[in-house]
Amino acid sequence: MDPTEGYDAIGYAAHDPEGELKPFKFKRRFPGPEDVVFDVTHCGICYAEIVWTKNFLGDVQYPVVPGHEVVGVVKEVGKNVTRFKPGDRVGVGYYVMSCRSCDLCNERQENYCNGPGGSIRQFNQEDVNKTITRGGFSNIQVTNERYVVHIPDALELETAAPLLCAGITVYSPLKKHGMEKGGKRVGVCGLGGLGHLAVRFAKAMGNHVTVLSTSESKKEAALNELGADAFIISKDQNAIQAAVKSLDLVIDCAAGAHPVDPFLSMLKYGGTLALVGFAPELKISPHYLCLGRTSIEGSITGGTLELQEMLNFAAEKGVAAMIEKIPIDYVNEAFARLLKNDVRYRFVVDVANSLKP
Amino acid sequence: MDPTEGYDAIGYAAHDPEGELKPFKFKRRFPGPEDVVFDVTHCGICYAEIVWTKNFLGDVQYPVVPGHEVVGVVKEVGKNVTRFKPGDRVGVGYYVMSCRSCDLCNERQENYCNGPGGSIRQFNQEDVNKTITRGGFSNIQVTNERYVVHIPDALELETAAPLLCAGITVYSPLKKHGMEKGGKRVGVCGLGGLGHLAVRFAKAMGNHVTVLSTSESKKEAALNELGADAFIISKDQNAIQAAVKSLDLVIDCAAGAHPVDPFLSMLKYGGTLALVGFAPELKISPHYLCLGRTSIEGSITGGTLELQEMLNFAAEKGVAAMIEKIPIDYVNEAFARLLKNDVRYRFVVDVANSLKP
Repeated sequence: MDPTEGYDAIGYAAHDPEGELKPFKFKRRFPGPEDVVFDVTHCGICYAEIVWTKNFLGDVQYPVVPGHEVVGVVKEVGKNVTRFKPGDRVGVGYYVMSCRSCDLCNERQENYCNGPGGSIRQFNQEDVNKTITRGGFSNIQVTNERYVVHIPDALELETAAPLLCAGITVYSPLKKHGMEKGGKRVGVCGLGGLGHLAVRFAKAMGNHVTVLSTSESKKEAALNELGADAFIISKDQNAIQAAVKSLDLVIDCAAGAHPVDPFLSMLKYGGTLALVGFAPELKISPHYLCLGRTSIEGSITGGTLELQEMLNFAAEKGVAAMIEKIPIDYVNEAFARLLKNDVRYRFVVDVANSLKP
Repeated sequence: MDPTEGYDAIGYAAHDPEGELKPFKFKRRFPGPEDVVFDVTHCGICYAEIVWTKNFLGDVQYPVVPGHEVVGVVKEVGKNVTRFKPGDRVGVGYYVMSCRSCDLCNERQENYCNGPGGSIRQFNQEDVNKTITRGGFSNIQVTNERYVVHIPDALELETAAPLLCAGITVYSPLKKHGMEKGGKRVGVCGLGGLGHLAVRFAKAMGNHVTVLSTSESKKEAALNELGADAFIISKDQNAIQAAVKSLDLVIDCAAGAHPVDPFLSMLKYGGTLALVGFAPELKISPHYLCLGRTSIEGSITGGTLELQEMLNFAAEKGVAAMIEKIPIDYVNEAFARLLKNDVRYRFVVDVANSLKP
C-alpha cells in the first residue's frame, strides 16, 4: 500500500534522540475490512515513551509518534467488524497486530506471539501496510478489531487509559498466581504508574497489600490514598526480617536497578517475584530461591481477552488510575518530570481537547 | 539425653576450617520407638561436604562428620517402626528430621519445613537428643523412620547413594514442570554429580536433552555415555542464537558464578530455568523473563515421599549414578579433586569395606 494514501492524521513526534516532541502530520491507513477507526480522546504516558523517543535501545526510526495507552470513540468500522460500531468507547494497548496463527495467538496470548517478528507494537514497528506504526499521541487510530477492547460504561476514558498498559501489566501476574481469589498477601514495589494500579487491583481482589518502597515519603499515600494495608521501607533490615516468608507474591514495578534479594526473602514457600518494570540487570542470590522453592518471573502486558477481562473487572470493582491530565503541548515537560518520578501516578494526555489541526 | 549415651560409632571428621578429615569416634543415640538403625555401606560426596567441612558459611561446630547421600542395611528398628525391618536396604538424604506438623511437612515437603528452625540436616545441626547431627561418613546411622527410604532391589547400593541428594535435587524440578510425561525439550547445565543425573532422568522420562557446557571436552561423554541428544557450548553465540526459545526447562546445576542470560534466551514461552546448584550471586536481564513470560526457580532436594518415588522411578527405568568408588581414607584427595571438577561424576565412599574400627 502506498504510505501516502490514507487519512490525514496529526500527532506529536520526536525527530531525533534528543526526544523533543513536536507537532507532526502523517497518514493513517484507510481501514481494511477488519479495522476499527477511532478518534483518540486520551493517551497515557509510560516509561516506554521515553525509551523509544530518546532511542535508548538504538532501534528507532524517526520520526516516532509514541503512545500506547490509547482510548477514544469509534468513528467507523470495516465491513467484517462485528464487535464494534460507531460511537463505542474503545481502547488499544501495546500491541496492534500479531500473526494470529501461532500457538500463543491461538491461546490469546498475542502479546507473546511466536510468529515471524512477533507481535507489532503501537509505534516504531513495520505495520501491515509496510508503514511504521505510530502511537496514540495522535488524533486518529486505525486498528485491527482483534486488538481493540471496549471501555465499560462505568469507567471514565481518561482514568481508564493507563489500564491499557500499566493496568494489564500488573493484573496479568496477579491473576496468573491466583490473587483474584483474595485472601493472599501481596507486596508491591515501585509506587508509580504500574505500582499504584497493582495496589488497587490487589486490594480489589481482596488481598492484604504491603507496599515496599525506598522512601518513607510514599507511606501516607500508599496507606491512605491507595488503601494498602502495610508499608515497608525496603532498606530497613528489621522490617524485612519481620516480613520474612510472609508474602505470596511481590509485584516488582521498579524500572531502575534495585536489590531484589530482600523481596525474595519475604516470599513464602512457592511464592513469586513478578518483574514487570523492565529493570536493567539485576543481581540475585540463588539460595533465597532454592531454600523457599520460590521463583522470579517476568511478564509483559497481557493478551487481548485478558485485556478486556481486566477492564471489566476494573469497571465492576471501581479500579482506575490516579492521573495528572495534561494538554499535549506539555508532554516534553511531562517526560522530564516522569524521569524524576515526579507524577502521581500517571500522566494522561487530553488528546481530544488539546491536539488541534 | 546424655550425649555420652548411645552406640559407639566411628567415622571421619574435620576438626577445623582446614577441613582435613581424620578418623573420629563418637556416639550415636540409642534408637527411640520411631527410629531405624542401619549399618552404612556407602556415602556419596557432594559439594556441600566441602562447604561445611571447610566452614565456608561460618556456621560449623567442629568436629563435623559430613555425608548426606547415605545407604546401608537395617540393623534394628524401634518398636513403632512399621515400614522397615532388619536386613532392608535403605537410604537417607539431606534431611533427618523436621517439625512434622507445619503445612509443608503435612504436604510431605519436609525439606522446606516451616517449623521452628526448619528441617534438620544430616550434619552440623542440633539433633532431637540435643547432640549435633553427624553424617554418613560413619559406620552406623540412627534415623527417624519418616526420613528413611527403601532402596529398590533393582538398584545397586553404591550407585543409588548419589540419588539421595543429587538425584532428588534434579528429579524434583523435572517432575514439577511436567517433564515426566516426556516429549519436552530439556537443557542441562553443569555436567557434574547433579547434571549427569539430570540428563539421565530427563532422558528416562522420554525427553529431548541438550547439554549446555562451557567446555567442548564434555561433548563426547554427554552424547555417548549419558545419552544426551544435543550439546551446546554455552559461550557460542551462534549456537545460542540457533536455540532461542527452544527449551521447556533448563536444569542449571552449576555451583560457580556463571552467566544465565543465555539460558533464559533459550527458554520457550512459559519456560523455567531451575537453579539447583546453589550458585553464588547471579546477574539476570529481566527483559528475557518479561518477553517470554519465563521464570527462574530454585529448589533444594525433595520431600520424603518424592524421594521414594524418585528411587522407584530410577529402579524402573534403570537410572543410577556414574560413580568413582573410593575408600574412606581417600576422602581428602577426593575433596581436592572435586574442587577441580575432577570426577566422573560422583565420588562414593565405600564405607562398609574401608571404615574399620
